[in-house]
Amino acid sequence: MSNQIRIGIAGYGNLGRGVEAAIAKNPDMALVGVFTRRSPESVTPLFPQAQVHSTSLLSEFRDVVDVLILCGGSKDDLPRQGPEMAAMFNVVDSFDTHARIPEYFDSVDAPARANGKTALISIGWDPGMFSINRLYGEALLPDGATYTFWGKGLSQGHSDAIRRVPGVKAGVQYTLPSSEAIELVRSGSRPELSTRQKHTRECYVVLDEGADAAAVEHAIVTMPNYFADYDTQVHFVSEEVLRREHGRMPHGGFVIRSGNTSEAHAQVIEYSLQLESNPEFTASVLVAHARAAYRLNQQGQYGAKTAFDVPPGLLSIKSAEQLRAELL
Amino acid sequence: MSNQIRIGIAGYGNLGRGVEAAIAKNPDMALVGVFTRRSPESVTPLFPQAQVHSTSLLSEFRDVVDVLILCGGSKDDLPRQGPEMAAMFNVVDSFDTHARIPEYFDSVDAPARANGKTALISIGWDPGMFSINRLYGEALLPDGATYTFWGKGLSQGHSDAIRRVPGVKAGVQYTLPSSEAIELVRSGSRPELSTRQKHTRECYVVLDEGADAAAVEHAIVTMPNYFADYDTQVHFVSEEVLRREHGRMPHGGFVIRSGNTSEAHAQVIEYSLQLESNPEFTASVLVAHARAAYRLNQQGQYGAKTAFDVPPGLLSIKSAEQLRAELL
Repeated sequence: MSNQIRIGIAGYGNLGRGVEAAIAKNPDMALVGVFTRRSPESVTPLFPQAQVHSTSLLSEFRDVVDVLILCGGSKDDLPRQGPEMAAMFNVVDSFDTHARIPEYFDSVDAPARANGKTALISIGWDPGMFSINRLYGEALLPDGATYTFWGKGLSQGHSDAIRRVPGVKAGVQYTLPSSEAIELVRSGSRPELSTRQKHTRECYVVLDEGADAAAVEHAIVTMPNYFADYDTQVHFVSEEVLRREHGRMPHGGFVIRSGNTSEAHAQVIEYSLQLESNPEFTASVLVAHARAAYRLNQQGQYGAKTAFDVPPGLLSIKSAEQLRAELL
Repeated sequence: MSNQIRIGIAGYGNLGRGVEAAIAKNPDMALVGVFTRRSPESVTPLFPQAQVHSTSLLSEFRDVVDVLILCGGSKDDLPRQGPEMAAMFNVVDSFDTHARIPEYFDSVDAPARANGKTALISIGWDPGMFSINRLYGEALLPDGATYTFWGKGLSQGHSDAIRRVPGVKAGVQYTLPSSEAIELVRSGSRPELSTRQKHTRECYVVLDEGADAAAVEHAIVTMPNYFADYDTQVHFVSEEVLRREHGRMPHGGFVIRSGNTSEAHAQVIEYSLQLESNPEFTASVLVAHARAAYRLNQQGQYGAKTAFDVPPGLLSIKSAEQLRAELL
């Protein structure tokens, strides 16, 4: 296909690999190259024809990359990389530290605007598709309440927290939504739910040789911010079981809006995701938004934008006419 | 609130009444008036302060109505009214004859464009929110399949069809989605489903005095286009039961996208609605889109548009900054 949108991938972990896989499923896109801070020879892309370059050479690719997808982390990579790259490229990222989004938005907006670039930030599923559904829910049912449930899913942050506990050799944590709470919300009764009522946490832990299981369990379930406010179950397993049964990265969740259009009539809107691979789905959302970033830029819409600013039609490979005829 | 968006309602049936109720839940909007083809004195609005005028006077309200919401039917009213009103007002309508949308779009686009107006057509939940979710599903999971299920819900068209059968005094029809089919789709297996496998139909019928029940049942279940391709159940009830138990207009349904981001990983996206009142929910969607139509017009985006052209943020009463801080 000629006139393909030319994509660069900055950062090649689980997310970057997911982006490479997603580009292959979108015939209007072509991968220009993977950019890594590691030595390029040490990186093995999914597809052997993919080029791997050093991040330090990125500025030489300004004229051949239409959209650069930033696949770094929100804590250390994006706050530095986002503003820098938005001065040179149209970019899409998955910045997901909710509380710092306004600050990050501003830091990316100025360089993008000054250089006629479009930067779609905080794209993925939460923030991202879940945010869009929170917005739709509130706008369509202003007299109502919104509930977000996560899981069943592997939480990277909580798994890292477990692994920092003395005596823990390895471990993963799953967040589970309470099915009782979800049923209550679906009934339209708009319940007040505590943190403990909405989710439970389940940990699979491999102990260090000779570690005290009871002490480890106590340290986990009482850990402030991460576990203290939840009902937490800790299961001790062997390294072999952990590797065999807990090596995947499933996730998902629910956004439910329950509201009334009149005293007599309750209405419930529900959006849910059931993901076998969290990073691959996030990557797929990023790639669809790369198409939108390219088109917004063509329209002269410069600066930082979020999922809230993207007309759904711009995400699709199909033309507006085709969408109206086939999907409306 | 000053600077409210000034709304007119053209047509005052169930949908028009729903729009009146929805405006009252959106503090940035004000109702200018209800416009009816009936004698204005014969119309009793929900709120006593609402003004009722004759449709024939609409052109006199060009300067005081920011958006006119068209609440007529898709068969007889909108094909005539849509193009005519789009030459004078920003409009929003719920044109829902899927096959004729491209033609209707063109008929509204030309007068709207020529007069600097914005016309949002085919807004509601299907077409509308379900369409948006079919689009998102396809764009996010290009290697996949989309399934739309409707119900449990009262179908106006099928209820009308029943009432035309000789021997039927009154009746309603419910469309029911098959829960087995939904579970199969949710499993990610991408089944091929026949019409008969996806939905069943349930009819509650009041017979004319002396009518032959078996003949009526046969006429219903074999009716081409409406019932012949479905498993249909017919229940005979008294007028009293029909009025008491089947007077509401519930509806809803599911849009499910099942796809793979890699051979190893299936992903499922699901959007569902559970509506106690179909017309009130549709009305609420129209009102949120009236806000977007007004804003698109302010931006100079003239002509016909659909739900695919509306950035989600324009539907919300909140500013872009507030949305980023609160909902992203």
